[in-house]
Amino acid sequence: MKINGTPYRSVWVDEKDGWSIHIFDQTRLPFALDILTLVTPEEVAHAICTMQVRGAPLIGAVAAYGLALALRSSANDTTLEQTAAMLAATRPTAINLRWAIERMLTRLRPLAPAERAAAAYAEAGLICDEDAAQNEAIGRHGLELLRALAAGGRRVNILTHCNAGWIATVDWGTALAPIYMAHDEGLDVHVWVDETRPRNQGAALTAWELGSHGVPHTVIADNAGGHLMQHGQVDIVIVGTDRVTRSGDVANKIGTYLKALAARDNDVPFWVALPSTTIDWTVSDGIREIPIEERAASEVTHVGGRDDAGNIVRVQITPDGSRAANPAFDVTPARLVTGLITEKGCCPATQAGLLSLFPEFGQKEQGI
Amino acid sequence: MKINGTPYRSVWVDEKDGWSIHIFDQTRLPFALDILTLVTPEEVAHAICTMQVRGAPLIGAVAAYGLALALRSSANDTTLEQTAAMLAATRPTAINLRWAIERMLTRLRPLAPAERAAAAYAEAGLICDEDAAQNEAIGRHGLELLRALAAGGRRVNILTHCNAGWIATVDWGTALAPIYMAHDEGLDVHVWVDETRPRNQGAALTAWELGSHGVPHTVIADNAGGHLMQHGQVDIVIVGTDRVTRSGDVANKIGTYLKALAARDNDVPFWVALPSTTIDWTVSDGIREIPIEERAASEVTHVGGRDDAGNIVRVQITPDGSRAANPAFDVTPARLVTGLITEKGCCPATQAGLLSLFPEFGQKEQGI
Repeated sequence: MKINGTPYRSVWVDEKDGWSIHIFDQTRLPFALDILTLVTPEEVAHAICTMQVRGAPLIGAVAAYGLALALRSSANDTTLEQTAAMLAATRPTAINLRWAIERMLTRLRPLAPAERAAAAYAEAGLICDEDAAQNEAIGRHGLELLRALAAGGRRVNILTHCNAGWIATVDWGTALAPIYMAHDEGLDVHVWVDETRPRNQGAALTAWELGSHGVPHTVIADNAGGHLMQHGQVDIVIVGTDRVTRSGDVANKIGTYLKALAARDNDVPFWVALPSTTIDWTVSDGIREIPIEERAASEVTHVGGRDDAGNIVRVQITPDGSRAANPAFDVTPARLVTGLITEKGCCPATQAGLLSLFPEFGQKEQGI
Repeated sequence: MKINGTPYRSVWVDEKDGWSIHIFDQTRLPFALDILTLVTPEEVAHAICTMQVRGAPLIGAVAAYGLALALRSSANDTTLEQTAAMLAATRPTAINLRWAIERMLTRLRPLAPAERAAAAYAEAGLICDEDAAQNEAIGRHGLELLRALAAGGRRVNILTHCNAGWIATVDWGTALAPIYMAHDEGLDVHVWVDETRPRNQGAALTAWELGSHGVPHTVIADNAGGHLMQHGQVDIVIVGTDRVTRSGDVANKIGTYLKALAARDNDVPFWVALPSTTIDWTVSDGIREIPIEERAASEVTHVGGRDDAGNIVRVQITPDGSRAANPAFDVTPARLVTGLITEKGCCPATQAGLLSLFPEFGQKEQGI
């Protein structure tokens, strides 16, 4: 997508040297657009852990390049397996990370060490291209939902939580892809952007993305969505996800569950956009089985922003001595989800719905 | 209640001059304990508008003193009515403000101007004493609920939203009064403190209050409560309220409705603590009839806190050019409320429940 008219992806290989990896430092957005260069797998792991890159699809793509970077200097089995394990341990909730690393291992294990680095770059590039193409397809399918709501020139108010935009993926985004397409074709869309404490990815990233693309939007506190729904000011909720179980439970940024409850209580459709790589066919009960990452308390006790002097600083908002807890995700039960938007089309948030779009998994997985 | 061992109320008349009014500047907590002196009704209105004082019961008490301050210099009918109107317009949602001003007018209108100032101070003092006594009674009734949950020495995890503590009232608080009493009698209580964006009254004020009194607590993002309830980590929710309709709908800080939905979805009891002055017997349907204050967008786009140098500053968290909306309250329908804790006891959140405790309003109000 474009920033001030220039098209970008969220991760790319340096054009001159052909091997180093570039990302945006998303911890500096929306106040600074810093492009980082990553040259070791340890730097990749650090970028993922510190959330310089975040967003389930993007994490998988960047981790794939992390493996490629490692194999440039040493491509034996030990390096391959140890680097894969190190990268897989950076974030526990997003399934795409595990998926991307397993795909890379499957591709690379059979190869002779001398062939592995080049193959790794090629495979990581494929993962990126496929992610962009999948998200474009998600956008086209989600666009149909928005067109229906916009019938007769009606304004469509969409609420989204966290950032499932193009900088959470390689390109286009998941939840935001239909919105970009709707805006581009002239539909009157307006987005309620949940701030998304504690890391403020909505206020910082989604608002920045939408503003850069010219999409009308309004930032709200995470607390406000229920009130807006009670008063008819939300026509549809679309969010992304870090992992969907085979029964349709949705793990996503903490607070998503609360918005799903409010949507149900007010008959507002609640849709979840995802590439099929986000589906975890091995898990059924999301609340019991998906591990929820507990992040640092300092993300709750402190807030980052720009001070009057223009510096990006962190301020403490809690009293000295008060503890904080920081579960980073929650699970929305499938019963609260109107449907899933995938690259293959829309479906109910059920095992039958998912298998109708992805029958190959029904054959592959025994007993489901 | 006590701060570092010294007992305070949240508003008091200066002991030396006998007429100026003192409050804490709650916009500076938890990082500074600044005591302000108010000497004109305009200063009182400013303190309410800028939320140097906030909390429905406290606003009413401070506004009553605002009227007393005005009458010291001019006590004719015009001053009385104009000052009352000016103070009533400072905040639209809290019913106690209107209640306190109407009580003052009823007491003062029949008096000769020369008698009004002294009578106003006396009446404002009564409002304060009655508020403290009512909250103590709320605490005793709510304590019974906590004792039942703590049977057998069990830890009781309580979730609260915003600040309904002693600095939201004259003393004791509403939602926090039962918690202070439970802690004081040795029950093992722990409080999940919702941060309460956008003004962070939970993170700043409730955490400060509880910490000052030694009550174990953990600050969480507003997004986290649903997840904690899904995992059995919340035994009861207790919140305050700015206005309760005669049918039991509850207006409270934005986001309360989302927690009530999550409590219902997870069979967690959801209680609302209030003095009877918070009941608006003239209103039935809270969602349709209670005006919701829209506060400044800057409360959403900026966050106040303490920087590394120890200064209290505000930082911008949204991109330049992104709009924000800031509805300050929402309404939780009575169907989601387990019960109400009042100074007369606990009751269902229904008209019948309220009238069982306050039968005098059934006689006074025709047609209900």
